[in-house]
Amino acid sequence: MKVHGKPMRTIWPTKDEEAVEIIDQTKLPFALEIVCLETVEEAAQAIFDMLVRGAPLIGATAAYGMALAARTDPSDAHMQQAYDILFKSRPTAVNLRWAIDDMKTLLSPLDPMDRKKVAWERAAQICNEDVKMCSSIGEHGKDLILDVYEKVGKTRTINVLTHCNAGWLATVDWGTAIAPIYKAHEAGIPVHVWVDETRPRNQGASLTAWELNQHGIPHTVIADNAGGHLMQHGQVDLCIVGTDRTTATGDVCNKIGTYLKALAAKDNGVPFYVALPSPTVDWTLKDGRQIPIEERDEVELTEVTGKDADGHLHTVRIVSEGSKGANPAFDVTPNHMVSKLITERGVCDASEEGLLALFPEQAK
Amino acid sequence: MKVHGKPMRTIWPTKDEEAVEIIDQTKLPFALEIVCLETVEEAAQAIFDMLVRGAPLIGATAAYGMALAARTDPSDAHMQQAYDILFKSRPTAVNLRWAIDDMKTLLSPLDPMDRKKVAWERAAQICNEDVKMCSSIGEHGKDLILDVYEKVGKTRTINVLTHCNAGWLATVDWGTAIAPIYKAHEAGIPVHVWVDETRPRNQGASLTAWELNQHGIPHTVIADNAGGHLMQHGQVDLCIVGTDRTTATGDVCNKIGTYLKALAAKDNGVPFYVALPSPTVDWTLKDGRQIPIEERDEVELTEVTGKDADGHLHTVRIVSEGSKGANPAFDVTPNHMVSKLITERGVCDASEEGLLALFPEQAK
Repeated sequence: MKVHGKPMRTIWPTKDEEAVEIIDQTKLPFALEIVCLETVEEAAQAIFDMLVRGAPLIGATAAYGMALAARTDPSDAHMQQAYDILFKSRPTAVNLRWAIDDMKTLLSPLDPMDRKKVAWERAAQICNEDVKMCSSIGEHGKDLILDVYEKVGKTRTINVLTHCNAGWLATVDWGTAIAPIYKAHEAGIPVHVWVDETRPRNQGASLTAWELNQHGIPHTVIADNAGGHLMQHGQVDLCIVGTDRTTATGDVCNKIGTYLKALAAKDNGVPFYVALPSPTVDWTLKDGRQIPIEERDEVELTEVTGKDADGHLHTVRIVSEGSKGANPAFDVTPNHMVSKLITERGVCDASEEGLLALFPEQAK
Repeated sequence: MKVHGKPMRTIWPTKDEEAVEIIDQTKLPFALEIVCLETVEEAAQAIFDMLVRGAPLIGATAAYGMALAARTDPSDAHMQQAYDILFKSRPTAVNLRWAIDDMKTLLSPLDPMDRKKVAWERAAQICNEDVKMCSSIGEHGKDLILDVYEKVGKTRTINVLTHCNAGWLATVDWGTAIAPIYKAHEAGIPVHVWVDETRPRNQGASLTAWELNQHGIPHTVIADNAGGHLMQHGQVDLCIVGTDRTTATGDVCNKIGTYLKALAAKDNGVPFYVALPSPTVDWTLKDGRQIPIEERDEVELTEVTGKDADGHLHTVRIVSEGSKGANPAFDVTPNHMVSKLITERGVCDASEEGLLALFPEQAK
């Protein structure tokens, strides 16, 4: 999507194909810094330190990590080592696993001398496929927004609430939950986005707000506490969120707080949509309650970083000293609270039947 | 409750009864600063600037505001002016209105020369009555915690989730929602409190955490997003929150985000209690949806103040520049989501019948 008026992706190879460049998302929204990754270790570190985040972008970065490994040393031993390093950088990320498995399966049978070229091509292809998938999600989701717009006689702006960042910054381009909004905006449908701040890491206030602002989409940041009240008062037409992991039955594991918004949507008859590229579906899992929830460092909650009036960044403690924090990073929204899933192949019920109708090849 | 090991209230007259002292709650949790109020204008300003907050404490401060007015000039004209100044300092606060009406009714018939003495006595009495009410709320709420403790065979700590600050800092002493926790702790029941951070003003992270820490109550601060997940996983035995305004039918207007926790509690079979001194009931109101919701400055959301590693305070912007924020301050939880109301007269259903059974004098 656009940054300073020009199209940009979140990851791209250098012209000589010797390195990959990414946006350091930990510096957003305060600075747009491009970081160059030259080795698989740097790629793994970028994932671990969340310079890149979002399931699809993590997958793309991991794929390029394998390509970087093939560039420096394409031997079997080194490729296996690269696989292990990348796997450990974010063990719960389904797309990461998918991407490095894909690269390994493709590269293993090849002569080591041929691996670099094939690896770079495949990594680029994975990125392009992700862009295509997100674009399709956007088209299918746009139709849902259009339905609402037509239902209100095209008389007013459509209000969409989103949680966390499932925008283009979380993918290679377009995003998942935000893709329908970009597509609706392109199609001339007036949209306004309620952006959940998304404590404790503030991905909504920092990343979603930044990318919507860059692309020129009207939006308003709200405390995570506010969404229920807005829904009670008819100020939300639909919710669209992303997902880190989806079960084969349509349970959705997404950023902590998603479940609360799903509850409010249900209570107020507001459609609650979850946008996902199919690689985030864990077809082996039938019950979302089985998903282990990452407990992250309390410092993400107790401290925040921001810019003072003079433009200086400070990290400050906001929790009373002597008090501890707890920081579960995700929660699970049961499928019966999800109105529809929006995938690259279309929209379906959040159920085993719904998903299998779109992805029959996954039936066993 | 205790601060640095010694009992303390949130407001008290100086020994010579020429002024009132309060804790400047805008400085917490970073500093404990006592501010001396010598005039009604200073009292009104302290309310307006939220040096004091919480419905009962606002009422107590307003009562002392009238006493301060009687000290400097007890004439009818000045007392009416004092009333108007105080009323405007927080027009939506039910207790403020109640306190200044009470003082006016008492003082108006008196000879101006007699007003000062009576006013100081009545203000002290209002404070003591508030302490007594909160203590009673604590006793009744403690029984609910004890019930759970007995139900689990007294084998483990009882986990209570609370939102915002309805502790002793919001009242003269004891608090409303936190009073049952202090009483349970005193009675030897092991309690642990999940403290909602409570964005955007962070009253949980700054005030509730501070007062629980000072008094030695085990607690953990969490993002507002986390409570639903904790309830899904059986980590919350009961919720207790306060209320700014309660309808005669038991609808509860409280800090933004309360409604989302009530939804999660209902979905997971967790009791959701609301603690209130009866002066926060608006007996004229039948439907919580009629309560106008204060929209506060977006700066409360976009900027936070905290302490850096060197002990310096900074106010920093955390929302992406160029993005706007919206800041509704309260939401309404409908009575059918409230398990019980905890009042100074006992526990009742959140309904007109329930409230009138405890407060029959309000029947019309």
